[in-house]
Amino acid sequence: MTVRERIQKLQALMKKQGIQIYVVPTADYHESEYVGEHFKARKFLTGFTGSAGTAVVLQDRAFLWTDGRYFIQAAQELKGSGIIQQKIGEPGVPTIEEFLKQELPDQGVIGFDGRTVGVAKGQEYAKIAEGKGGSVRYDLDLVEAIWENRPPLSEKPAFLLDIRYAGETVEKKLERVRKDMEEKGADVFVVTSLDDIGWLLNIRGNDVEYFPLLLSYAVIQKHGVELYADERKFSEELRTHFRKNHVTLCPYEAVYERVKTFTKEQTVMLDPEQMNYALFSNIPVDVPKVRTENPIVLMKCVKNAVEAENIRNAHIKDGIAHTKFMYWLKTNIGKETITELSASAKLEELRGMQEHFLGPSFGPICAYKEHAACAHYSSTPETNVELKTEGLFLTDTGGHYYEGSTDITRTVALGEITEEERKHFTTVVCSMLHLAYARFLQGCTGMTLDYAAREPFWRQGLNYNHGTGHGVGYLGNIHEPPVNFHWKKVPGKSKYPALEVNMVITDEPGIYIEGSHGIRIENELMVSEGEKNEYGQFLQFEILTFVPIDLDAIDPEQMTEQEKGFLNDYHQKVYEKIGPHLTEEERSWLKNYTREI
Amino acid sequence: MTVRERIQKLQALMKKQGIQIYVVPTADYHESEYVGEHFKARKFLTGFTGSAGTAVVLQDRAFLWTDGRYFIQAAQELKGSGIIQQKIGEPGVPTIEEFLKQELPDQGVIGFDGRTVGVAKGQEYAKIAEGKGGSVRYDLDLVEAIWENRPPLSEKPAFLLDIRYAGETVEKKLERVRKDMEEKGADVFVVTSLDDIGWLLNIRGNDVEYFPLLLSYAVIQKHGVELYADERKFSEELRTHFRKNHVTLCPYEAVYERVKTFTKEQTVMLDPEQMNYALFSNIPVDVPKVRTENPIVLMKCVKNAVEAENIRNAHIKDGIAHTKFMYWLKTNIGKETITELSASAKLEELRGMQEHFLGPSFGPICAYKEHAACAHYSSTPETNVELKTEGLFLTDTGGHYYEGSTDITRTVALGEITEEERKHFTTVVCSMLHLAYARFLQGCTGMTLDYAAREPFWRQGLNYNHGTGHGVGYLGNIHEPPVNFHWKKVPGKSKYPALEVNMVITDEPGIYIEGSHGIRIENELMVSEGEKNEYGQFLQFEILTFVPIDLDAIDPEQMTEQEKGFLNDYHQKVYEKIGPHLTEEERSWLKNYTREI
Repeated sequence: MTVRERIQKLQALMKKQGIQIYVVPTADYHESEYVGEHFKARKFLTGFTGSAGTAVVLQDRAFLWTDGRYFIQAAQELKGSGIIQQKIGEPGVPTIEEFLKQELPDQGVIGFDGRTVGVAKGQEYAKIAEGKGGSVRYDLDLVEAIWENRPPLSEKPAFLLDIRYAGETVEKKLERVRKDMEEKGADVFVVTSLDDIGWLLNIRGNDVEYFPLLLSYAVIQKHGVELYADERKFSEELRTHFRKNHVTLCPYEAVYERVKTFTKEQTVMLDPEQMNYALFSNIPVDVPKVRTENPIVLMKCVKNAVEAENIRNAHIKDGIAHTKFMYWLKTNIGKETITELSASAKLEELRGMQEHFLGPSFGPICAYKEHAACAHYSSTPETNVELKTEGLFLTDTGGHYYEGSTDITRTVALGEITEEERKHFTTVVCSMLHLAYARFLQGCTGMTLDYAAREPFWRQGLNYNHGTGHGVGYLGNIHEPPVNFHWKKVPGKSKYPALEVNMVITDEPGIYIEGSHGIRIENELMVSEGEKNEYGQFLQFEILTFVPIDLDAIDPEQMTEQEKGFLNDYHQKVYEKIGPHLTEEERSWLKNYTREI
Repeated sequence: MTVRERIQKLQALMKKQGIQIYVVPTADYHESEYVGEHFKARKFLTGFTGSAGTAVVLQDRAFLWTDGRYFIQAAQELKGSGIIQQKIGEPGVPTIEEFLKQELPDQGVIGFDGRTVGVAKGQEYAKIAEGKGGSVRYDLDLVEAIWENRPPLSEKPAFLLDIRYAGETVEKKLERVRKDMEEKGADVFVVTSLDDIGWLLNIRGNDVEYFPLLLSYAVIQKHGVELYADERKFSEELRTHFRKNHVTLCPYEAVYERVKTFTKEQTVMLDPEQMNYALFSNIPVDVPKVRTENPIVLMKCVKNAVEAENIRNAHIKDGIAHTKFMYWLKTNIGKETITELSASAKLEELRGMQEHFLGPSFGPICAYKEHAACAHYSSTPETNVELKTEGLFLTDTGGHYYEGSTDITRTVALGEITEEERKHFTTVVCSMLHLAYARFLQGCTGMTLDYAAREPFWRQGLNYNHGTGHGVGYLGNIHEPPVNFHWKKVPGKSKYPALEVNMVITDEPGIYIEGSHGIRIENELMVSEGEKNEYGQFLQFEILTFVPIDLDAIDPEQMTEQEKGFLNDYHQKVYEKIGPHLTEEERSWLKNYTREI
């Protein structure tokens, strides 16, 4: 079936159902960052394979909204489909909401699968429809009806995260959450975010690409928890764990009927930013609601002592694998054929040799020379190139271990590099170090501190168009809200909580010169306690990542004594932590690559 | 009449009026930072002379809330009055609101002069009273009735700010304000803040201590403006100016009756943070209201080209006066008797010799040695000390000129200083310079950039408990909202707008060691345009203040090459700008004090 035929089938169904406009976003039912195969409805419908984009289908035309990353790719993939591309942010291009206002006829109906649309967006669509005297239909997954052989919902088994990894019992966690519910006067709390449910119940799954999470909803009551998930995923061990913690298992989709049974005698707590429109709309209007930020988000991002110690260990393993990779790359480049993809495979292979490795923690980025200038580049068989003994090679990769998840970027010189590349590399390193070695008072946020990383760039009239860092989950989302480093508010990231001891956050400045090169260096940091004196409690960062920063690409002349001191201090730690786990040959290589400058 | 008698008289009046608790804050009718003599009711009632504090009088007892700055002074001044001191923030001390909740009997009445209480606070009081089935009386100034010889409202003449100082006609300014009103769907805009009215109508007055402002309210309509002020203050020139701009004069207090005449056919715009409770409450409930930040605040804080050029000139004058003062102090200390107060007088005298000097722009701070450790210290005949040929002397002073207002702090060594003082002095200088020489992208706020100034402190485990800087008005409030530098949100300063070209802001880090010394260095900065490239529009600061930083107190060893470069660059500019206006002797002194290090 061609894309054109798919659209026509959908339009026929729309006519039958009396729907004038049907919206198909890229989303699962949990507002997840990555989605499983079952949820790639927009990709099926339009043929566009990018990770972000929304299809809007009228009865006689179809449109696809994409952002700047995908303008070229979408144009190619939509060719011949008849779908009209809408380039987000380009002059004259309406937003989807503006377009709906324009195109929806009087008394018209906007349709969408309400499980894949957030509360705010769904309410906006409803408001637009009401403005025309029309309405929304959010209970129809029309793509389901035309998608033959749709990949089923994942049926992969869930697993228990042992207390020696989770560090806190479900009982204690529930106690904390219920205390928050009580403070807010809530009787019931509906949790829809997969990483929060995983954290709360010390369980994980295999249902989301790259993230070991379980498709589920949880309804927390004063006594007991209802867990909505595919029961076939649970072992006897897990069932015992649930019984012990008063967790009742219910079918995954049953939550939609369950929330209809809430009465006005119960106050229901929910986080509208995490909930989908269908679930929200199913809660009776007269049920008292506490709309609040999910308290688990902040609890989870402050790692407990056991998690913190595990994370340190995960990073030692990751550092060993990555240092071995760097040694292999530096010593074999030019001697054997190495490509972006084969290097990527080698790095994953080396990670795989570490105990308790579960898999990559996100889609690896391995980008040579000008490929790295595109921050979102991901090598494919079509774009894959051979690495030569020149220029810079960037890898942004990570792994999940039982002991935690890692996210690390290194850029290495494979041979000669230009003076500009050397200057830029040194700037990125100094930027990363200034933030990593910052000392600051309790109360600082990622917004207050971002200047530490930007200053070396801004002084030269340079910048990078992304945040300096993001929170990192423990076998959860690699981009874990809410902490992040950014110098100004960006849409969708309005929260900048004060940094607290044991929060984990990345430090990853970069520079991207189109058609030439891209450089990014990323370490993970954990907030730790500093001096306490009459001015208050000082905090600092413990660097978690231990892999050399390539001295072949550094210009020491460009660095202050302080900056050299930071780098030497870091390299000494890398040698101490990683050296003992290497072969003699690797260790002597590491000695040189962590030498004092 | 003793304070005890005043309280008793007030309590008698309260009983007569059926008021259980009467609140007397320190405020005028315009939420001004400084208030005229007429408004010092709390001082009259309690005998406490500090600038901040609130009296709460019950029928049988009286209380005074003060903050940490005034714990000692208030204790002394309240002695024998019978008034009970409440130390804000100390353990077990309730807030005024908590106290009202505790003490107000059922059906009780809280009384206050609603003109001296902001909307939010008044509403809080009303809510507390309603919670007890009682009410508020906000139309009674009971202190007025017992205050014999109360200083009348200021009757000092207003004056026109010529277009060569104001830089923009009233017509243009009104056009901008009305555009904002139109966008917000407002027919009428009630303005109550004195500096905003002064800016809008290009007028000034002499009604507020230190600030050349006119007691007034303005009601802006689509055509015409009503100005509520004492008509006797206006010259024929001003009256002509008003007629030309369709400004109608009305009696000052008549605004309270005027707002009662608003009807529900008009939408009234107002800024609840600037309005007093009485005025707000007089607007009929059914009048549609647009509650918004006063748009004039942001318009005013971005100086126009004429103001900017004037401000530069004001700072040259101020720099001449202050450099002459520094020369005089450095060359005469030890030779003649100089005290904190006589030095302060000398500095004002030197400012007075500059053309267009109107007066000090705020209460001068002149503090020797440990006196400077208290950031709010202001020398009085009781505390005045003689300056000796040792230690550090801090002056934080400023002047109003037709060309603008200045705010400058210098700390100078009068002879030997300790190694710790030298280290701290150098830290403060480096901090000030890092911020002054920052380059940053458009979109940065004072919160993003504050780290530039804090870093040299935090690295050493030091800090200062105040913002790094504040906006500066043009013949208005010396602390002009909304821009400021601070690393975290502080109560009452929730707004951190992006910095824009021609905003003026101070840069004044400091260090305060109790019982030993205090150091602060303050320059004013004006935001200016930097490079524009693919990363966006870069901004930087133009330093406005030109007075040497005392090299006698600097330790060059502690400074990086970059920091020395900043200081040398600054000192070269000081010499170029100020040198030509000095005597030969002064100039050769300046040459030495601006030498390269």
